[in-house]
Amino acid sequence: MDQIQLTIQTAIKAWEMQISRTDKFLGSLDDASLTKEIAPGKNRISYLIGHLIAVNDNIHAMFGMSERSYAHLDEAFVKNADRATNREPGISDLREDWKRSNEQLSALFSRMTVKDWLSRHTAMTDEDYLKEPTRNKLAVLMNRTSHVAYHLGQLALATPRR
Amino acid sequence: MDQIQLTIQTAIKAWEMQISRTDKFLGSLDDASLTKEIAPGKNRISYLIGHLIAVNDNIHAMFGMSERSYAHLDEAFVKNADRATNREPGISDLREDWKRSNEQLSALFSRMTVKDWLSRHTAMTDEDYLKEPTRNKLAVLMNRTSHVAYHLGQLALATPRR
Repeated sequence: MDQIQLTIQTAIKAWEMQISRTDKFLGSLDDASLTKEIAPGKNRISYLIGHLIAVNDNIHAMFGMSERSYAHLDEAFVKNADRATNREPGISDLREDWKRSNEQLSALFSRMTVKDWLSRHTAMTDEDYLKEPTRNKLAVLMNRTSHVAYHLGQLALATPRR
Repeated sequence: MDQIQLTIQTAIKAWEMQISRTDKFLGSLDDASLTKEIAPGKNRISYLIGHLIAVNDNIHAMFGMSERSYAHLDEAFVKNADRATNREPGISDLREDWKRSNEQLSALFSRMTVKDWLSRHTAMTDEDYLKEPTRNKLAVLMNRTSHVAYHLGQLALATPRR
């Protein structure tokens, strides 16, 4: 494996680590616990999971290489705050969506070439990209990894402190 | 800039984005607010900042290329839970340590070569590294970036929801 492929693999592993930690968290809770707030007056666990599914699913649109499957979750989990809509899926659907959406992203990442990763994302013009070539698809992956970690930190508060 | 340098710069930018967001959060709070809990019964803001300083400072040890400056914070902020010791610095010292420790890390990152980034970290044997070459210094940076994001997500709970 050459240096650049190794580095892209490293970034994918960092992503997978956050997804796998979130998986583990979800696996540790029963359905009733998923409807609890992470702290008094804050988002419910289920909202944050729906939010992660929808935001991560948007990677497909930003990369322009595959179709989104969970755009219908944007209304309840991205455009609106928790409990502002009544358009949420049930908990077992949410668990299934979480699992399936991660499988879809893993499949996308595994078929991307080095050239794909280092090319601009669709939210950026060619001109902007020439000025700032670090704003490529790999940067999107890294920032989405931080986004998962950000909300995982909040989710972790829902469990009693060890 | 070649592909691998570009990719390393992308990872450093992802790190800087989390640090800069944490900076902004800290700048928005007065000293008294920093001693508040992020949620009832959870860590205080000041503890999480001390924790981030100490854990990030340990990057110097893991890279083996420079000396740690904040190992004395490990006792209060890594080895022990919040409020378990009375060895914490005052808030203004903590703010100064946060700023200075980030400057030190930026200086370290900026002088590292591609070869440095792709070499193993000190917590790993040569043998392990041969088996898993993605566990290099760049992987440490990515995982520490997620770690900052994880706690930043918690810190953000301390402010009223918008």
